[in-house]
Amino acid sequence: MAGSIFGRQFCVSTWGESHGKGIGVVIDGCPAGLSLCEEDIQRYLDRRKPGQSRYSTPRKEADQVEILSGVFEGRTTGTPISLLVANTSQRSGDYQEIASYYRPGHADYTFDQKYGFRDYRGGGRSSGRETIGRVAAGAVALKILGELGVAFRTYTRSIGPICIDLDRFSWEEVWNNPLYMPDAQAAFQAQEYLQQCIQEQNSAGGVIECVISQVPVGLGDPCFEKLEANLAKAILSMGAVRGFEIGDGFAVAHSTGAENNDPFYMGEKGQVQKASNHAGGTLGGISDGSPLVFRAAVKPTPSISREQETVTREGENIKVQVKGRHDPIIVPRAVVVVEAMAALVLVDALFSGMTARMDYLKRIWGPTGPVA
Amino acid sequence: MAGSIFGRQFCVSTWGESHGKGIGVVIDGCPAGLSLCEEDIQRYLDRRKPGQSRYSTPRKEADQVEILSGVFEGRTTGTPISLLVANTSQRSGDYQEIASYYRPGHADYTFDQKYGFRDYRGGGRSSGRETIGRVAAGAVALKILGELGVAFRTYTRSIGPICIDLDRFSWEEVWNNPLYMPDAQAAFQAQEYLQQCIQEQNSAGGVIECVISQVPVGLGDPCFEKLEANLAKAILSMGAVRGFEIGDGFAVAHSTGAENNDPFYMGEKGQVQKASNHAGGTLGGISDGSPLVFRAAVKPTPSISREQETVTREGENIKVQVKGRHDPIIVPRAVVVVEAMAALVLVDALFSGMTARMDYLKRIWGPTGPVA
Amino acid sequence: MAGSIFGRQFCVSTWGESHGKGIGVVIDGCPAGLSLCEEDIQRYLDRRKPGQSRYSTPRKEADQVEILSGVFEGRTTGTPISLLVANTSQRSGDYQEIASYYRPGHADYTFDQKYGFRDYRGGGRSSGRETIGRVAAGAVALKILGELGVAFRTYTRSIGPICIDLDRFSWEEVWNNPLYMPDAQAAFQAQEYLQQCIQEQNSAGGVIECVISQVPVGLGDPCFEKLEANLAKAILSMGAVRGFEIGDGFAVAHSTGAENNDPFYMGEKGQVQKASNHAGGTLGGISDGSPLVFRAAVKPTPSISREQETVTREGENIKVQVKGRHDPIIVPRAVVVVEAMAALVLVDALFSGMTARMDYLKRIWGPTGPVA
Amino acid sequence: MAGSIFGRQFCVSTWGESHGKGIGVVIDGCPAGLSLCEEDIQRYLDRRKPGQSRYSTPRKEADQVEILSGVFEGRTTGTPISLLVANTSQRSGDYQEIASYYRPGHADYTFDQKYGFRDYRGGGRSSGRETIGRVAAGAVALKILGELGVAFRTYTRSIGPICIDLDRFSWEEVWNNPLYMPDAQAAFQAQEYLQQCIQEQNSAGGVIECVISQVPVGLGDPCFEKLEANLAKAILSMGAVRGFEIGDGFAVAHSTGAENNDPFYMGEKGQVQKASNHAGGTLGGISDGSPLVFRAAVKPTPSISREQETVTREGENIKVQVKGRHDPIIVPRAVVVVEAMAALVLVDALFSGMTARMDYLKRIWGPTGPVA
Repeated sequence: MAGSIFGRQFCVSTWGESHGKGIGVVIDGCPAGLSLCEEDIQRYLDRRKPGQSRYSTPRKEADQVEILSGVFEGRTTGTPISLLVANTSQRSGDYQEIASYYRPGHADYTFDQKYGFRDYRGGGRSSGRETIGRVAAGAVALKILGELGVAFRTYTRSIGPICIDLDRFSWEEVWNNPLYMPDAQAAFQAQEYLQQCIQEQNSAGGVIECVISQVPVGLGDPCFEKLEANLAKAILSMGAVRGFEIGDGFAVAHSTGAENNDPFYMGEKGQVQKASNHAGGTLGGISDGSPLVFRAAVKPTPSISREQETVTREGENIKVQVKGRHDPIIVPRAVVVVEAMAALVLVDALFSGMTARMDYLKRIWGPTGPVA
Repeated sequence: MAGSIFGRQFCVSTWGESHGKGIGVVIDGCPAGLSLCEEDIQRYLDRRKPGQSRYSTPRKEADQVEILSGVFEGRTTGTPISLLVANTSQRSGDYQEIASYYRPGHADYTFDQKYGFRDYRGGGRSSGRETIGRVAAGAVALKILGELGVAFRTYTRSIGPICIDLDRFSWEEVWNNPLYMPDAQAAFQAQEYLQQCIQEQNSAGGVIECVISQVPVGLGDPCFEKLEANLAKAILSMGAVRGFEIGDGFAVAHSTGAENNDPFYMGEKGQVQKASNHAGGTLGGISDGSPLVFRAAVKPTPSISREQETVTREGENIKVQVKGRHDPIIVPRAVVVVEAMAALVLVDALFSGMTARMDYLKRIWGPTGPVA
Repeated sequence: MAGSIFGRQFCVSTWGESHGKGIGVVIDGCPAGLSLCEEDIQRYLDRRKPGQSRYSTPRKEADQVEILSGVFEGRTTGTPISLLVANTSQRSGDYQEIASYYRPGHADYTFDQKYGFRDYRGGGRSSGRETIGRVAAGAVALKILGELGVAFRTYTRSIGPICIDLDRFSWEEVWNNPLYMPDAQAAFQAQEYLQQCIQEQNSAGGVIECVISQVPVGLGDPCFEKLEANLAKAILSMGAVRGFEIGDGFAVAHSTGAENNDPFYMGEKGQVQKASNHAGGTLGGISDGSPLVFRAAVKPTPSISREQETVTREGENIKVQVKGRHDPIIVPRAVVVVEAMAALVLVDALFSGMTARMDYLKRIWGPTGPVA
Repeated sequence: MAGSIFGRQFCVSTWGESHGKGIGVVIDGCPAGLSLCEEDIQRYLDRRKPGQSRYSTPRKEADQVEILSGVFEGRTTGTPISLLVANTSQRSGDYQEIASYYRPGHADYTFDQKYGFRDYRGGGRSSGRETIGRVAAGAVALKILGELGVAFRTYTRSIGPICIDLDRFSWEEVWNNPLYMPDAQAAFQAQEYLQQCIQEQNSAGGVIECVISQVPVGLGDPCFEKLEANLAKAILSMGAVRGFEIGDGFAVAHSTGAENNDPFYMGEKGQVQKASNHAGGTLGGISDGSPLVFRAAVKPTPSISREQETVTREGENIKVQVKGRHDPIIVPRAVVVVEAMAALVLVDALFSGMTARMDYLKRIWGPTGPVA
């Protein structure tokens, strides 16, 4: 069954493998009239592009996006937007060897079991390059959200044992270090830690945090389509993510109702506000006007040069050293993917919420056509 | 937009409010030929029924399920199964007062903002009673999975600061204490802790763990429909859950590739096995034959008798004491809901996986009809 | 896989069999704030209720609807609406005999092949009573459309060889004869024809026509979700329908471009209008502001008392006379089902169209919540 | 909302405009292990390619398909298949003029109303070139169906007043005339008729018929997902189709139950068979083992060179002669599109039917993985 389509109304259909002809995405359901050009998308793709620092694979890919359809004279037409990123640096020869065995921590074994065989070149569809389609589509979603005033801040919260200190938090700093950490001192320490990992032929994990402000009240549906439920799915659908939490997250297990409940009060402009945000921006699965705050736990890169134990396709126990161009850490390049996935969820929730009330219908539809 | 339908092939459509006529669910997509009776469902509903211990609301509800359609002579017919649980203990008068203000930690405010007004009786659709539909549908999913050998163990891992000790783990103990903890000593301590919460007009949170064994290899799809992504959505769609993790979960952020990768080796029966299970049973979003292990962080009951600050619908700051029949903790009654939601995800993944290979098609369809 | 859910945003999940406990439907996705009571639904159900005339089965069913959820203080809440019609006149004994053979023109054989067995009582899920769920849900859709000014006229166009004459068309006449024909003379002739069919232990077919006016321009999506495509699916999903056409329909095959193209001209109020309506109200799959006009071809009731040839489940050639309470014609009772199905399609298209333009989004969502 | 995605399990996402960079489709949900190469797809695309005869537009397009993903070493991998056909003959200058007015019979007006503006070059997304994505995806579906023995015969049944004579029916003849008519004499007469249309600057319509044999029993679901319902949607989603009928279709309206019911009898090999096929291959929405027989009514090409009345975008009544490269008839090129759409529906029904019975599940899933 289909597994590469995301979204109920803003539908994103991604395709492509690490060593195929390219990676792409079709967006079906983008409203007409959005100003859109390739540069709008490229700047997000550049944040995940390889070779930006010593902490990402040296594979050389321009990752240049091309808009193939759905935009006319600089604006979206309301019909499907097809985006293409050609692969230019496929050196399949590197991967011939791994065809014969199962890399620990990778999807080699499960793909073989599920499908009977696999495209073993660079992980095929399970490659990190698959996220290009997510980021390209997410960039369009972010453009829509930006027009409605929604603002994203996504960053590396921790790498291995090094966590940012909120007292030193500086949003601008995110753009000054290759790890996208909003704390210069933590970024420095994390780089030292990563150097050590590289020397030890090892890899590191970390936590990505996303804070979304100016989110309209009322996004998300009760029951199964809670906003945090769709965010959790979106984030856990990323290859290396093993945990998701919103607001206080796992800390709520140790909290009490008196601590965890956020009191309401009337703001100065006569708006209902919350005195705290333990909830992370949702109540009953619906956005409450506070910033959305969630975190993703990212595992260490499974590709390490160190010798590991595994088995061959023929069922022989062996020891292997996985060759290739590995990132010692996935976290920094995954930051923009988290942002993209969250944007896809929010746009879908925005669309869904358009029909929440009868009077919303009347704002759009008059008796003989759209209301002017 | 619709928010109360779950599943792509095994589709579950739940309905009902706390103080309406009842709660129910329609299951569309259940295969024909499954032996099914009301008792199969009732035994799961009984695990979430109120009034079982001093730690759950004293509201008296039989929560008796009735099968209205889809079963003929003891077997499912392949057509929709409609399940109904009548509400019998609605005392709406209790709730008249909360119509006028927004309870902290509840969905009162967001429902009002989203829909313009709300059914304020007992939380309406955002009541914990909504989970009856989930559990009833999950019971059918669990029956299907049971026929394929899949086995579930779901239990309370921690309550407030009290966590089970794996050295004392006893599955049978789960049925001996009202908290569904597989550790008698922890259960005793947790009950003392809850007594203290009750005395302080406070409430507690906790962590639920689910271990699913004998899961077929190959469940889940690459990209957006990863098995853990759908589990995360399912679990975060439960009202009080604020976090989800699979396998080592958030701990992976501190781990390294060398530690976190699970080595493969050949088992005695010639099967590929993993020497450890940091991954929690999936690789690349697809089940790997190891047990699925995941956890949910559950917040403290937001309904507490203690005085809290909030605002009225008219925008006045007030202090309130929320009356009503509250659980001091949600965790024990949520255990079976976690199990039910996981079962819905697994059945959907089983169905989805039926078309993964051309030769699977040929096992079902011959040239002129189903293969005998 | 699920087959009893209809609609992408206004999702309708029907259930129930002819001789089970009842028939029902869950509507997920109805906007909040719609005034709704049981009488709003009942008046549509009464149009398909059996026993209204000598041309429908004498089975006695009150077909009384009950709203179980989703309505509070007379208005929809935005959460699922569960509707129930209890079966009261199930005489299963009538049907014991047909368990053993396959009625020609019925789904007995295909159900057995698909599912391995079947609920043979009155056709089970393939009974005409299944349409109760459609009509109940359609009634809610019609209420929504009515608030936007959309108006339906659905009627019997022909029965057997008797077709209405447009020169004698009278909408009021529809309510004066049991056949829902808008032509008194044709209705008289059709009744004579039906009497003859009854005498001959035979049954008749016919054509239903639906004209929907005041349809907003812009409903339907290009490509697969064309308005007429969804109408066609909706109508062909009715048990006895074998054909669908919109506008000139099959007559276009004999027409020419010069005849078939509808010229545009400017109306008196400065609106674009069409000089003719060969298209039946859509261009490129999108409503054009002209009335939607479509027709459904309904087959003769397959249940006839006359002797027929068939086979038993054990594979023996036999001759049978199907007993039971049969309608000599399905058409009159199907008129309201056609209307209900069309309404479901239109509401879904209305919802879908809410996100067609960026400026529609801005009408609903301001920077910090729904625009007041 | 998304309108260019078709199918529930075999999901097809098409994109592209007449004068954009290309046309394409992403197929998500194709089973792994299907042998597939570009030639498998190209031979279907060649049947709809322009410039094949004097009855299709002289626009020169190679319509060469390229497989961008999802195939490895000649077999499908189970991951998305991206197919691309580049546009090579876009002469946008031709269309500058039609930007200013609404062509009768086209979607110009409705696109402007729905989206606020339109890509006017060659109809943009509403161009007949949109069907390239359908045919490319359909070719993959046809390959799957071919492996299961399902066989298609799709042909032109009538053009204007010229209908094939069943006594002269010859399947081979379909490949001998440019109209895909299985009757040489009718094809000759139809060509004379079309010559006359061309001379009169007019265009013609017709009927396409599709007969699918060796269809497994049991495809299609009761209620909304009836096989004929999905066929109807698929066929009506084609731009120029105005009617759909299955089996006897609209003729059932004049028939009687005694005539229309197909008697069952036991075939020589002990199989249940039908003595006639008025039903066209389905009973209760489920395939019955007889050939599927359905027809589509195709309207005359709306683009005609003759002068027509219309209005400008500014609301002025004008007379226009639409320039460009028009087909005098759409029917012959639409034959393969009908076949492709039907194949998409059948594959989806095949997939859906895999979970109809509990014992089908057990054929695929053993306790610890797929059954070998």
